[in-house]
Amino acid sequence: MEAIKKILDFIVEIEKLKDVHRKTRPVGLDRYENSAEHSWHVCLSALMLKEFANDAVDIDRVIKMLLIHDLGEIDCGDTIIYASETKKLKAEEAAGLQRILSMLPEDTAQKYMTLWYEFEAGVTSDSKYARAIDRVPPLLHNLHGGGHSWRENEIAKEHVFHLNRRIGDGSEKLWSVLEEKLEQAVDSGLLK
Amino acid sequence: MEAIKKILDFIVEIEKLKDVHRKTRPVGLDRYENSAEHSWHVCLSALMLKEFANDAVDIDRVIKMLLIHDLGEIDCGDTIIYASETKKLKAEEAAGLQRILSMLPEDTAQKYMTLWYEFEAGVTSDSKYARAIDRVPPLLHNLHGGGHSWRENEIAKEHVFHLNRRIGDGSEKLWSVLEEKLEQAVDSGLLK
Repeated sequence: MEAIKKILDFIVEIEKLKDVHRKTRPVGLDRYENSAEHSWHVCLSALMLKEFANDAVDIDRVIKMLLIHDLGEIDCGDTIIYASETKKLKAEEAAGLQRILSMLPEDTAQKYMTLWYEFEAGVTSDSKYARAIDRVPPLLHNLHGGGHSWRENEIAKEHVFHLNRRIGDGSEKLWSVLEEKLEQAVDSGLLK
Repeated sequence: MEAIKKILDFIVEIEKLKDVHRKTRPVGLDRYENSAEHSWHVCLSALMLKEFANDAVDIDRVIKMLLIHDLGEIDCGDTIIYASETKKLKAEEAAGLQRILSMLPEDTAQKYMTLWYEFEAGVTSDSKYARAIDRVPPLLHNLHGGGHSWRENEIAKEHVFHLNRRIGDGSEKLWSVLEEKLEQAVDSGLLK
């Protein structure tokens, strides 16, 4: 019973991810997206696009990675992907995740901490694919939302192409479709 | 490539779940919860509580159920669980889900429609457990949030106990912990 109570405390603690604000607005909405709804969105996106991963992936592992991938932001907030992913920021995020996972049984905490490090390293097929999917919604938000986040954060087209090309590491087919959409955005003046 | 474009349209369409408002507020927040962040929350809750399911469950199926379980609300909105779950409401939700899933390849659409019907029927071990978990966050929101939703919607304690007792169909251990918390809420005057 004590074990269940502790997990319920964890379930209440992670509510805070609903108050971590990202840098793009969901399509059609005026407010910024939060990291909890983003996490749901990428899980379902990964599930539906799995046939297009470069290598065979274990979608159930990918979904678990994406369910927990942003939990560390509860302590240190969301950083736009175009800001350099510094070692300091990543260490803070790891410490945040460690704090939150420590509310769970030790073996569970260890398991998901390891899964997060795998996600962050982006070396395995599962993590390459998960990281590719994680980049998709912000692109769609900009493409369907007047390029608002690129504009507000002064992100140049070269930077957008350079950073998102890594989507191809997880799915070349997905990147080729998105690259075409980005090129159309340049042609239409949305992305400068 | 056309297949990927269609799935990207689906990914944009389901953004609308981020604008479907529920009847409880996340702990510590002034605003109402939306069904997208709720879906993430129940997936992670299900994952961490799986050892306490009455019967062995396939957690990966449970998570997929929970990822899609509220998509039909995009067309018909969220209804508080204490309102009677009428056949008309459920038919509308099914039609909404069918419309959204029809943006995907036919076999995928069929697969997740079937999974949703399994969730709704609540007969299998996986669906009993998924349905139990789906009821947990609103209880925690009330228990940690002054009973706001019970009060605003004039839900009596008898109704709360009667409806949530079904959590025991998925996890008797989880229900016993929550039942104790609800009894404490009655003792403290939070739940009347």
